[in-house]
Amino acid sequence: MSAESDSCVVLVLYDSQGLVAELAESIIEGAASVDGVEVWDRPLDQADKDELVRCDAIILGSPNWTGITGRLKHWWDYTGDLWESGELAGLPASAFTAGWSPSGGLEATLLQLVHLLIGHGMMIVGLPWTSTMNHSGSYYGATAVRKVTELDRQQAHRLGARVARYAVALQSVEAADG
Amino acid sequence: MSAESDSCVVLVLYDSQGLVAELAESIIEGAASVDGVEVWDRPLDQADKDELVRCDAIILGSPNWTGITGRLKHWWDYTGDLWESGELAGLPASAFTAGWSPSGGLEATLLQLVHLLIGHGMMIVGLPWTSTMNHSGSYYGATAVRKVTELDRQQAHRLGARVARYAVALQSVEAADG
Amino acid sequence: MSAESDSCVVLVLYDSQGLVAELAESIIEGAASVDGVEVWDRPLDQADKDELVRCDAIILGSPNWTGITGRLKHWWDYTGDLWESGELAGLPASAFTAGWSPSGGLEATLLQLVHLLIGHGMMIVGLPWTSTMNHSGSYYGATAVRKVTELDRQQAHRLGARVARYAVALQSVEAADG
Amino acid sequence: MSAESDSCVVLVLYDSQGLVAELAESIIEGAASVDGVEVWDRPLDQADKDELVRCDAIILGSPNWTGITGRLKHWWDYTGDLWESGELAGLPASAFTAGWSPSGGLEATLLQLVHLLIGHGMMIVGLPWTSTMNHSGSYYGATAVRKVTELDRQQAHRLGARVARYAVALQSVEAADG
Repeated sequence: MSAESDSCVVLVLYDSQGLVAELAESIIEGAASVDGVEVWDRPLDQADKDELVRCDAIILGSPNWTGITGRLKHWWDYTGDLWESGELAGLPASAFTAGWSPSGGLEATLLQLVHLLIGHGMMIVGLPWTSTMNHSGSYYGATAVRKVTELDRQQAHRLGARVARYAVALQSVEAADG
Repeated sequence: MSAESDSCVVLVLYDSQGLVAELAESIIEGAASVDGVEVWDRPLDQADKDELVRCDAIILGSPNWTGITGRLKHWWDYTGDLWESGELAGLPASAFTAGWSPSGGLEATLLQLVHLLIGHGMMIVGLPWTSTMNHSGSYYGATAVRKVTELDRQQAHRLGARVARYAVALQSVEAADG
Repeated sequence: MSAESDSCVVLVLYDSQGLVAELAESIIEGAASVDGVEVWDRPLDQADKDELVRCDAIILGSPNWTGITGRLKHWWDYTGDLWESGELAGLPASAFTAGWSPSGGLEATLLQLVHLLIGHGMMIVGLPWTSTMNHSGSYYGATAVRKVTELDRQQAHRLGARVARYAVALQSVEAADG
Repeated sequence: MSAESDSCVVLVLYDSQGLVAELAESIIEGAASVDGVEVWDRPLDQADKDELVRCDAIILGSPNWTGITGRLKHWWDYTGDLWESGELAGLPASAFTAGWSPSGGLEATLLQLVHLLIGHGMMIVGLPWTSTMNHSGSYYGATAVRKVTELDRQQAHRLGARVARYAVALQSVEAADG
């Protein structure tokens, strides 16, 4: 639970290069649309490792640079103490990415983001299929290709809201990891 | 929520070939150890598609046959209506596998199982790291190699209990998917 | 080397449901465009396991059904003797898929096909990036979404030709696996 | 083809932290055991991007830090010009990793390395199954867990030799990418 307040905090953390920052906007709006949720908007150069342990959910984004960016991974490479202590286990978490080619590694990049999150024991929340996925998004998270479309924004908003609802739901019950 | 009763139902569904049935035992014990949880033990030849929509969590297992078995995938290929309706979205879910080679596809098989689950919009629950993972288990689920060891049983038990606790926690709140 | 003749044989094997059969046409044309190459066109119901050991390269296709189809995997589940003997090791190989959603599992399906191929010790040949990938194709193979476009055909043709050229190149040298 | 000489050059490039440097030794020995092959041993701090275009094969290694290390990925993030020009397309390539947990991400890390390589259009060479894989190695490359065993060394040697043989074989024929 967030130490600061009674609100439930969703941390949106991303390497903001390319279209990722624009896609993050809709994720943030989606998360903020859920009652009782506070969103921390953190492009990588404003990220603070201490906030990882003070939030209630994490949504992680990277451009598709044949996988996540080195600088985002480098940042996560300093979270090994939290990995070892298991402090982030059980947080709802999700991923988003953007790039130029629809099947040129977007899923692979999402999977790498998911691997970081599940490696910390987080619970992975994706996008269930709807016909919107015929144009945007993946089971593993939100996407954009070449530009951020209205459907990309819808999926990103939906993902943000979905993670936020799980964060609120799980905040009210005892920790599942004993 | 389970239609049958007030209890929370965890469905353990698996292709029982090889060591998978033995590993399933510990998953079932772990899930059953959580108060208010009922476990449905379903090797593939006793599986019933209708039960998918009546359970509160799913733990899916397959031997590592260079990926999941064809017969397990074939069974899932008939769940397209549920994929389209999104009825399984939001269920906590996890995976387990067993094989002969520690790095010879166990993770790939778990990832294929996870893909089926997240493809239905389920929430993926894995195993957070502990030093036990140096000998058994994966972030993506429970494992066994060549035989089911005591540490394999511990990880499988832990996974079953973890999924069951999330199922109970989420049962008490409104559905996150609106 | 092919037992039948001096030609180099590329086996194109696929579950023909959906758009896969149409995409296979261009792969076959691409492979056949290489001098000295004979192509065996094998939708799954005409596939013969004995041909696996008599060809010089394999290109494997499946619709995206949240991964490869169960019936294709089931067919491969009977190739365990070849996996154990290593008879297919060293063959150039590649993958193709088709579906409805550009980032809804196309890469995951290609990865599952690749896993089958590399699990038999084959060498994986994909598509190098060109600007065409902004519209079609993946590093892991050829793709189509909702319909087979002209660019899909170009990428599929290119993939078929690429695998065929490697098959010819490697046919002329001693086996790399000793 | 290598610009420097008539020999065929295998570049072994790795983030040398943990056991990776020790595992690299056997890969290097394996590659060097093939007639006509010269090996360039390059831990990351001695790596030179210009050498990527002057070698005939690449074997890439990283410790398993819940995926490849950020610093290795960061180094590759500066190879985008080669990705765009396609200069590395067609090189035989493979991967290796080491870590503490047999199923705790070794395959995922190998897959991330493979993704970088196939993203540049390289041909992926792995390890065909033999009973040694019951103790060491993956279809996707060589591995070590907690220490480098004799079987780890055998698999690494075999991988190095396998990639080197393909490099020699393909050097003697015209480029497959036209």
